[in-house]
Amino acid sequence: MPVKVSEEDVQGFLEKAIELARASGELMREAFYKDKKVDTKTNHADLVTETDGAIERDVIAALKEAYPDHRFIGEETAVDGKQCDFTDDPTWILDPIDGTTNFIHGIPDFAFSLGVTVNKEPVVGVIYLPIPDTMYTARKGKGAYCNGKKITANVIHEVSQALVMSEGGNGRDETVIRTHSDNLHQILTRSRGLRAYGSTAIDLCKIACGQGEAYVQYDLHCWDMAAGVVLVREAGATVMDPTGSGLDLMSRRVLVATSEDLARQISAMLSHIANGRD
Amino acid sequence: MPVKVSEEDVQGFLEKAIELARASGELMREAFYKDKKVDTKTNHADLVTETDGAIERDVIAALKEAYPDHRFIGEETAVDGKQCDFTDDPTWILDPIDGTTNFIHGIPDFAFSLGVTVNKEPVVGVIYLPIPDTMYTARKGKGAYCNGKKITANVIHEVSQALVMSEGGNGRDETVIRTHSDNLHQILTRSRGLRAYGSTAIDLCKIACGQGEAYVQYDLHCWDMAAGVVLVREAGATVMDPTGSGLDLMSRRVLVATSEDLARQISAMLSHIANGRD
Repeated sequence: MPVKVSEEDVQGFLEKAIELARASGELMREAFYKDKKVDTKTNHADLVTETDGAIERDVIAALKEAYPDHRFIGEETAVDGKQCDFTDDPTWILDPIDGTTNFIHGIPDFAFSLGVTVNKEPVVGVIYLPIPDTMYTARKGKGAYCNGKKITANVIHEVSQALVMSEGGNGRDETVIRTHSDNLHQILTRSRGLRAYGSTAIDLCKIACGQGEAYVQYDLHCWDMAAGVVLVREAGATVMDPTGSGLDLMSRRVLVATSEDLARQISAMLSHIANGRD
Repeated sequence: MPVKVSEEDVQGFLEKAIELARASGELMREAFYKDKKVDTKTNHADLVTETDGAIERDVIAALKEAYPDHRFIGEETAVDGKQCDFTDDPTWILDPIDGTTNFIHGIPDFAFSLGVTVNKEPVVGVIYLPIPDTMYTARKGKGAYCNGKKITANVIHEVSQALVMSEGGNGRDETVIRTHSDNLHQILTRSRGLRAYGSTAIDLCKIACGQGEAYVQYDLHCWDMAAGVVLVREAGATVMDPTGSGLDLMSRRVLVATSEDLARQISAMLSHIANGRD
């Protein structure tokens, strides 16, 4: 039986997510200008700071208090590699700092990202960039916004006119990197150009406001994209699995493009990676 | 016989470059928010707008009036593929809009870039980003500045700790793209991550202010880097040919890193491309 939530409930989720984004952004801003204690997770490129953990603890605690019967998936509590228990219940999916490597390297391209799913469908997405103080918000069926202003994707239909974003990611598995490099070769050959900003959340914000037309990623996690997929869909973009089938939020891969034609062209030129499940 | 210019002369070049950057920035800001007439040059990814040409004409005209015995190299006047006549004379090397594709796609990462060489040595570099109104300036031996504030690179010695920037560029030669993809594979495997912002000038500004530790590029031109190499050197970074020899501004390739150790590690892991000369 699908879970029922009212429109007012969903609006409440959006408002709670915005409130938590602003509070977390303050912590991020403070920490960004100080020395950071950095730890590695799975390899030399997979980094985490005290701030990631602190924000996640605070946000999940606040959400548990407000919504004791909801479920919660967070990047830093999921690092032990256990599969996520993803159900039809309202589920808050959090990346406290998307773009941690940028955060550590003094690059202001990092964001708080919080999405909500109901019946496994993303319905609310909030992405907040604390340094430029830019808030992206979206609610299913209600449009995408940047600082309260409606935003739309740049709809095009030809890959030769597209700027395509794709990130190296934090994984260092040789097969994934090899396939990723081959895909970059395809993107470089056929598109107008490749961009890599080091944050999935920010890549998706850019597409939502018309700055770039496609994004493809393997080896990412549900918390990297849960908020962003609502945002780009509400801005008019298409979201699918890179193979061309429907998006599966737990499949660790995603393809976004500003039209279905464009998505199909990009899907056809890629070598697909199956990378386990969240 | 080397050309002699005084310190006061060089300071005058810097001030003139800043003045022209500000004036050009106004034209760029105006044009950015309007519809743009876009033409292709060598292929579907090599783009130019009216604004590139208009700024170049204005800037070269102003420079010819101020310095009638100097030489001038500009991206838009060099597109016919003629080899640049690069001499010991004071030479102004201009990219009116570095990051034209970003400019066209509504992405604010584009810059006016103007460098001056004397005896073939870059001595002045000015890079201006009109949308955030950020002015990067450097004069040989006098430090690097961002909006008048001294900036320094983030000196590190291990590639596993480095964020490395490299751009796809506008060329679509299959050998270059294949080698570039292989190099990206090396960078993805060994570094902390790859970034690509779509503008050499901006990549070099980022290194100069400590946001990223290396940049490598083949298939670029002297106008992409003439200003930036002064800036990164004055911020404490090393500039060399990707093979490890000294920089040759006309060789269409460059490697920048925040220490010589780091530059040598990156040089050793790359496949080098010889791409003709400017």
